[in-house]
Amino acid sequence: MRIALCGGTGDIGEGLALRWAYDTGHDLIIGSRDPEKARTKAEEYGTELESRGTETTIKGFENAMAADRADVVVLAVPPYHIRDTVEAIADRLDSDTVLVSPAVGMKRDDAGLHYNRPSAGSVTEMVAEVAPEGVPVVGAFHSLSAGKLANLDIELDEDTLLVGEDEDALDIVHLLAEGICGLRSLSAGSLENAAEVESLTPLLINLASHNDDLHGVGVTFE
Amino acid sequence: MRIALCGGTGDIGEGLALRWAYDTGHDLIIGSRDPEKARTKAEEYGTELESRGTETTIKGFENAMAADRADVVVLAVPPYHIRDTVEAIADRLDSDTVLVSPAVGMKRDDAGLHYNRPSAGSVTEMVAEVAPEGVPVVGAFHSLSAGKLANLDIELDEDTLLVGEDEDALDIVHLLAEGICGLRSLSAGSLENAAEVESLTPLLINLASHNDDLHGVGVTFE
Repeated sequence: MRIALCGGTGDIGEGLALRWAYDTGHDLIIGSRDPEKARTKAEEYGTELESRGTETTIKGFENAMAADRADVVVLAVPPYHIRDTVEAIADRLDSDTVLVSPAVGMKRDDAGLHYNRPSAGSVTEMVAEVAPEGVPVVGAFHSLSAGKLANLDIELDEDTLLVGEDEDALDIVHLLAEGICGLRSLSAGSLENAAEVESLTPLLINLASHNDDLHGVGVTFE
Repeated sequence: MRIALCGGTGDIGEGLALRWAYDTGHDLIIGSRDPEKARTKAEEYGTELESRGTETTIKGFENAMAADRADVVVLAVPPYHIRDTVEAIADRLDSDTVLVSPAVGMKRDDAGLHYNRPSAGSVTEMVAEVAPEGVPVVGAFHSLSAGKLANLDIELDEDTLLVGEDEDALDIVHLLAEGICGLRSLSAGSLENAAEVESLTPLLINLASHNDDLHGVGVTFE
């Protein structure tokens, strides 16, 4: 599978790229608004993986080039860059491209982080609103700690929740998620359920700050 | 410790009453608007516990009588009865009574259940608004499946999240929570963080409906 990580130079993009490169045989493309930055980061990831005995061909491109001919495009960008990023890659997307949204809007006050619900209902629904018609959207990977993902010494043992409506697209993202060792993917229903899924992210960050030994905490459902 | 469960005839009240009676030595009082119903349910719980070899003295009273002289009052009532219930018991509460809120507001649509955020920010914050001044409020037990709690054959292995500002009150509720075998309590910060905690409940119910073997699903953070 060919996976493009738009904004793949950021922390969650790095974590997902390293895990997929290390645990699976998928082709990975790092996207950025700045192609030079994308190339530099792709090389960094390659060096890290080679030091662990994994040969890779991770390449870096400007976002639209990265998304070109990708089977799956992950929007690993902050919520306020979603619209720009989707517009920039729109003509590379079609009904065979799965658009994956891991982003969460949050705001901070004295008590900690809070879910900042966009007018679309959730960031995932915002992606569905701005995506070209017919492009399937799946929300996933919201509750993963970027730092923990990017540290390949840490064994994962947690769940990720998927929302979406296109069954084929959901199957692909379940497969991608479970390709990462120690990650289990569960269905949380349709896009309308994304707000509760995205709300987990500030909750996890608050738990990490209020409990010893819960740095980079993940969530398991059973 | 003397624990009053206002609305203790309902499903979450039943689950908490049975677990505390079975796993701890706390005194339990079942409260209801209807004292006869409270007495009947208290007897039912007693019979269930006796069948398992646990002698108890669970008693049932009208809510205000139940709350009288309790160390902890659990508001095991739906969100739309919070205000009435707190008003009915207000003159039995003081700064030594811990008021515990496990309730969550939800609404259903075709996609499933959704968090229905009250204007106070969360049900827990609504409780704090209507509680007499100086009475400490703690949000807890939102993510527990009532059915699983009430079935003493099921071993628990999950977490509950606490929010609140009064350290002494939080210590008491941590102690009560961890008195239930298989339940771990974690701090989620102050009352302003209650919305993300309460949002877990519709998420868990949606997960139960979308995944095999997740009936009565709980949550663990690690």
